[in-house]
Amino acid sequence: MELINKERLWETVHALAAITIEGKPWTRRSFTAKYNQGREWLMNQMREIGLEVEMDAASNVIGRLIGTDPSLPSIVIGSHTDTVPDGGRFDGIAGVLAGLEIARSLKEQSIQLKHTIEIVDFTAEEPSEYGLSTVGSRAWSGNLSEEMLSYTNSDGQTLAEAISFAGGNPNEIEKCKKVKDKIALYLELHIEQGPVLLNKNANLGVVTGIVGIQRYKIFVDGLPNHAGTTPMDMRNDALTAASEMTLALERIAGGKYEHPVVGTVGVFNNFPNASNVVPGKVEYQVEIRSISEEVIDRVASQFLAEADAIAERRKVGLKIENVSRSKAIIVNDEIKQLLTNACRSITDHVIELPSGAGHDANQMSLLAPVGMIFIPCKDGRSHCPEEWAEKEDLYLGTKAMLNAVLEFVK
Amino acid sequence: MELINKERLWETVHALAAITIEGKPWTRRSFTAKYNQGREWLMNQMREIGLEVEMDAASNVIGRLIGTDPSLPSIVIGSHTDTVPDGGRFDGIAGVLAGLEIARSLKEQSIQLKHTIEIVDFTAEEPSEYGLSTVGSRAWSGNLSEEMLSYTNSDGQTLAEAISFAGGNPNEIEKCKKVKDKIALYLELHIEQGPVLLNKNANLGVVTGIVGIQRYKIFVDGLPNHAGTTPMDMRNDALTAASEMTLALERIAGGKYEHPVVGTVGVFNNFPNASNVVPGKVEYQVEIRSISEEVIDRVASQFLAEADAIAERRKVGLKIENVSRSKAIIVNDEIKQLLTNACRSITDHVIELPSGAGHDANQMSLLAPVGMIFIPCKDGRSHCPEEWAEKEDLYLGTKAMLNAVLEFVK
Repeated sequence: MELINKERLWETVHALAAITIEGKPWTRRSFTAKYNQGREWLMNQMREIGLEVEMDAASNVIGRLIGTDPSLPSIVIGSHTDTVPDGGRFDGIAGVLAGLEIARSLKEQSIQLKHTIEIVDFTAEEPSEYGLSTVGSRAWSGNLSEEMLSYTNSDGQTLAEAISFAGGNPNEIEKCKKVKDKIALYLELHIEQGPVLLNKNANLGVVTGIVGIQRYKIFVDGLPNHAGTTPMDMRNDALTAASEMTLALERIAGGKYEHPVVGTVGVFNNFPNASNVVPGKVEYQVEIRSISEEVIDRVASQFLAEADAIAERRKVGLKIENVSRSKAIIVNDEIKQLLTNACRSITDHVIELPSGAGHDANQMSLLAPVGMIFIPCKDGRSHCPEEWAEKEDLYLGTKAMLNAVLEFVK
Repeated sequence: MELINKERLWETVHALAAITIEGKPWTRRSFTAKYNQGREWLMNQMREIGLEVEMDAASNVIGRLIGTDPSLPSIVIGSHTDTVPDGGRFDGIAGVLAGLEIARSLKEQSIQLKHTIEIVDFTAEEPSEYGLSTVGSRAWSGNLSEEMLSYTNSDGQTLAEAISFAGGNPNEIEKCKKVKDKIALYLELHIEQGPVLLNKNANLGVVTGIVGIQRYKIFVDGLPNHAGTTPMDMRNDALTAASEMTLALERIAGGKYEHPVVGTVGVFNNFPNASNVVPGKVEYQVEIRSISEEVIDRVASQFLAEADAIAERRKVGLKIENVSRSKAIIVNDEIKQLLTNACRSITDHVIELPSGAGHDANQMSLLAPVGMIFIPCKDGRSHCPEEWAEKEDLYLGTKAMLNAVLEFVK
């Protein structure tokens, strides 16, 4: 019995992806008319299948396939349908439409499960114009505060108003909050957004967890001086100091650790930024990610010590500001095993890997055991128009997820 | 006989410096009302002394002390009275007011020279809002083209219009152009704008020449990737590549050469400059300065070769654009000797040094032998409100210049 319809799954992905701002493929920003249009399409698909459709107060779209035992906690399969500006065709919607295809297949084959299956399109997973991401799943986990609802976009509109525009009810956000044992399992399929599966020739990846992130702002204070009249050995050049620190981070994060770790300087601003002035100030941002908090701490402390030594040797000031620190999420062994078995029943090319990016699964991990399946993306690229996944991989991942669900409810 | 009046010289410097935009010490930008006000003050001073005062078509202010033999070429003592934004009290005006004091002393003591002495405040020496520096001395050397006169500021006003506002006549710029043997000598006193005199405990510096400058724009092209999902060993990080190049320039320019050389990355722009994206592009600017073209070429070629090797090893693209190349100016031995003798007759603390910055002397070197005397500035700093020179040093420098003039006309 072929439960997943490969062609149909692929077609729904392209049908939803095609709902994009004209001339700006592929852009469907949260809280825009296009976003609403995409979700109308999705709700129609859900109704067509016969799911019970709801939009909750946080404007999350939920399609329910009611189980035979309503007393059991539900299984939630989710992701998101918003994109970054100039994004791609798979990030987010692949997971929602995998869920849709699973529900459609079960309905089609008249397979009735004891558990209710909820297919969820969480509101605004990507960083929105209101400076917040994973808006919808935050509402479920109780992490969407009154203060956040008052965040504004550049036009001065509040997030609360944006949620109203999307069809939600910002005054009743608290009603979205889920009780912990009402969800048995959260599953999410996603493109990897990195090159690991490709490089290891894997079709499917079982996510071992989602990395924790530490972010720092670093301020290097040198002396802005005339670039013609200040000899090399009398300079306090903030740029060369910051360059040396950037290379130190690269070297330290590139070392060998028990768990993968990355360290990145992404933001780097030089002042006064004039060709004839020795740079007097550099402000840059460091982020360090790993599934292991202990590895993050080791990389961070070694980097900060080296930065300090560099500043001292070069006689420049150094100020370090702790910006944020998000905890790693570990997929429990039982769920990892469930997903690994489900994937291996379909293909031999399965590896385990951590997710370097955050997902709605971050918030969901506060409510239930979570599991994620990654599929490869072309050249490891995402958040760009070239973002691409193969039909076959999407099919395999969706099939594996359905197998996992069937195994879980046994 | 005490020719130079130390107190009077000091007072005139502070009187002119005080003509500054309120609340923004010390700012007297070229082509502003404040600038015109400062020059009115200067022309009044010149008239008071009894100089023949002229403003030429390029709005240069000239005060002439007519010599006894009008057939002889004149001696020009000049500098400028405009400042950079948030500049200091000495850069430029020290040289003009040293000239004024010399003329005043000669007049006062009824010392008549064969040569005419011209005290010149050259228009807009600092980079003006029209993207051009040494505007007035360019007019003298014939390097102020029609095209340059059509350069605009951010309000769309042309440089020609600005020159009119300053009191010049942009239609007659060509009349400013000097014939080569009409000037016997150009002298300029200036603060060093660097720390060398201070560090060598010298009161006066005889400038051996003005450095040549080579400027490059460097474009580093990596791959912008997700900072969480791209392992360290699969990155093409433009920022770490550019950082390594910046440190290479610092190391190469910091080596031992027959002549001092400096190499600076002053402009450095990172893209897309987001905390969670591995930098995909860096554009930065390199400048290399030395009195020796040969040393500049050696530093440049070694740097460019290393940058190339770094780009290749790190698998990032590299594009190099030659922005500009200005030739070094060498002070001839006769003038150097003249100034060295004049300085040594006043103080033992005299050194020779190149000028790392450009001056009106650059343009004047196309018309006549040039000589420059540097006086120390506090902490080697310039182009900032803290810019400072000592009364004694200004006095010594002015006295030395007068001695040089008296020796020259013998």
